[in-house]
Amino acid sequence: MRKIQGGVTAPQGFQAAGLHAGIKGNNTDKKDMAMIYSQSPCVAAGTFTTNQVKAAPVKWDQKIVENSPTIHAVICNSGVANACTGAEGMKYCEDMADTTAAALNIEKSQVLVASTGVIGAQLPMEKITKGIENLVPELSEDLDGGHDAALAIMTTDTVPKEIAYEIEIGGKTCTIGGMCKGSGMIHPNMCTMLGFVTTDIDISKELLTEALKEDIQDTFNMVSVDGDTSTNDTVLLLSNGLAGNEKITEKNEDYYKFKEALHAINVFLAKKIAGDGEGATALFEVKIIHARSKEQAVTLAKSVVTSSLTKAAIYGHDANWGRILCALGYSQAEFHPDIVDIYFESKAGKIKIVENGMAADYSEERATEILSEEEVTAVCDMKMGTGSATAWGCDLTHEYVSINADYRS
Amino acid sequence: MRKIQGGVTAPQGFQAAGLHAGIKGNNTDKKDMAMIYSQSPCVAAGTFTTNQVKAAPVKWDQKIVENSPTIHAVICNSGVANACTGAEGMKYCEDMADTTAAALNIEKSQVLVASTGVIGAQLPMEKITKGIENLVPELSEDLDGGHDAALAIMTTDTVPKEIAYEIEIGGKTCTIGGMCKGSGMIHPNMCTMLGFVTTDIDISKELLTEALKEDIQDTFNMVSVDGDTSTNDTVLLLSNGLAGNEKITEKNEDYYKFKEALHAINVFLAKKIAGDGEGATALFEVKIIHARSKEQAVTLAKSVVTSSLTKAAIYGHDANWGRILCALGYSQAEFHPDIVDIYFESKAGKIKIVENGMAADYSEERATEILSEEEVTAVCDMKMGTGSATAWGCDLTHEYVSINADYRS
Repeated sequence: MRKIQGGVTAPQGFQAAGLHAGIKGNNTDKKDMAMIYSQSPCVAAGTFTTNQVKAAPVKWDQKIVENSPTIHAVICNSGVANACTGAEGMKYCEDMADTTAAALNIEKSQVLVASTGVIGAQLPMEKITKGIENLVPELSEDLDGGHDAALAIMTTDTVPKEIAYEIEIGGKTCTIGGMCKGSGMIHPNMCTMLGFVTTDIDISKELLTEALKEDIQDTFNMVSVDGDTSTNDTVLLLSNGLAGNEKITEKNEDYYKFKEALHAINVFLAKKIAGDGEGATALFEVKIIHARSKEQAVTLAKSVVTSSLTKAAIYGHDANWGRILCALGYSQAEFHPDIVDIYFESKAGKIKIVENGMAADYSEERATEILSEEEVTAVCDMKMGTGSATAWGCDLTHEYVSINADYRS
Repeated sequence: MRKIQGGVTAPQGFQAAGLHAGIKGNNTDKKDMAMIYSQSPCVAAGTFTTNQVKAAPVKWDQKIVENSPTIHAVICNSGVANACTGAEGMKYCEDMADTTAAALNIEKSQVLVASTGVIGAQLPMEKITKGIENLVPELSEDLDGGHDAALAIMTTDTVPKEIAYEIEIGGKTCTIGGMCKGSGMIHPNMCTMLGFVTTDIDISKELLTEALKEDIQDTFNMVSVDGDTSTNDTVLLLSNGLAGNEKITEKNEDYYKFKEALHAINVFLAKKIAGDGEGATALFEVKIIHARSKEQAVTLAKSVVTSSLTKAAIYGHDANWGRILCALGYSQAEFHPDIVDIYFESKAGKIKIVENGMAADYSEERATEILSEEEVTAVCDMKMGTGSATAWGCDLTHEYVSINADYRS
């Protein structure tokens, strides 16, 4: 497995584009529409928000992913989420697919749609329609095409998020690429974001779906920026089979190679979302080890990574381990507080701060040094069994409040 | 029922004091130890944190409340929580009870203990012991005694929180008074705070306990400042029976009169904690009406009141109702997003912002006017049944982050 440059256009046969359509305002530097296109038909898998309030494009994609045997394109806009928009919003979503299909000479049922942004507003359809028409001639197989698309799906993200890997399967070079966006309303329970992963690996729809659903649990669903599960969360995985490998139709070695690469892509994207959480100055990783079970480890990890007090302490580079132990305690997972050990870890080193539920003999100065890095890990050793889990979040900062007190203006 | 001045010393026979013992530092303006004392023996009820990590005084009080037929005093310190302090912390807690008992010439088993502040540090026992000895001569039945105690239990609270009511029971004037402190690690699941309620009403321990446990569900447990359930949450209710009413031993009219007054006290204190949440500029009330059941209404109300994005929008006086609908959606309570109505309400008026799951025709200017008050209510009409619930929280502000990024320094 080899990391290569690029994102969704890295695999063979995928084109992409991103442009400014004016949905996010008149600043032409702000791209707000993206398209991904594969001339060869793709099989597609998708995972979606568990929020009962689902945006129109989520409902659309759920239907398309389930019923359409092949997919050719994804159309996406940022700025307006098309959520809580009723029948009118559903119609607009379908219109987006329709316009895209006409422009690309494909079927409406072969177009997936994604939207992200403000809830409750209707899409500016004139701009959207023009945007779609302008996207088609911009489609490019180059890295730039994928990069423009990665820029266009951003909302409060500060950086685009792209990644690609090459793997050898049966002597053929296969590629898998991805992009995603955060960075608010991010909380475990489906990814709470938009993620698009493309690959030229030949694989059955059933196994593509199974691989995505399984891997999401350990990656996107372990990310939390603010505990708010969005109405629009979507991860789509498209495979056009152009790599020419022997089609993967069973769980053989090839399948597990593919899964490993998919996992690397998803972990990278998940961590990118966490580290670029709204207003974040640090990626905060929580590792639970030796829990009674994996399920218990997941519960404990999510509880710590979502604790506002812990997140604020990370922002302050303050080794306030009491808040971590407290968050473990209210997680509903049963454990023995009196035997827990806790460590802080970063590029600057590793330090034990809690031993058997009480303060270990550590230097506050050294702890602050470790906590001053851009990626900080808390390791909680529950000393109960073999279950482990990792969750990713970020610190809680003044900037988070600024962004969200005034998002719509 | 009549609101009167004062707090825990308002009922007959209760004395209190608060002073500076130096636990919170050398600033002598900062009181950090409080004592409540009743010469007549009291029956006591208590409710405690559900966090598995329980501070030493929580463990102590649970035992005392259950096993001791009578109580005479409560000793409380702020600054150090005596949580995650192991056997040494448990010993210090017992020493606090012991010293208090000796100073007041009562039994150790008649003393309840409460601590609040930093987790993981051991109590400075020399200061604590001296503090206890100095508190006894300061005990006073005056309102000042209660007020000093209310000041001494504060941590990041900006104002002391006291209340008292008089009621007539069987021709006798009975009094009930209370004080409490917040204001971080505040989240439903037992009160996440310290609350002390005193009364001279004569009532059996069984009914006192039942009344408290029932009322806590609709009051303290419906408060959330930051979603973090503390290790130290405690509400204690002491009754010395000095009012001379016919002892309440069954659920008669007198019992319900008492419960009504207790509810008024608890609602007042709960709202005070929410409105004085760390860094808060506004009390944020969430009312769910016409839910399928009360249980469902509680789930929905708590989900909205704890949503970071909604809380930040309240800070920004931004009618970002999409975040409210989103928080209802991920609450796990089933409902129909397409029929929900949402209103904002405050002293400045009431406005419908969502009708049947979509934006109502309202003025943003008017909405901002309503949201600019110090107490703001969101009313969500689920149109499903007769269940209702109210939760209290506060906005999420820059100041919250400042306080918690650097709490220990």
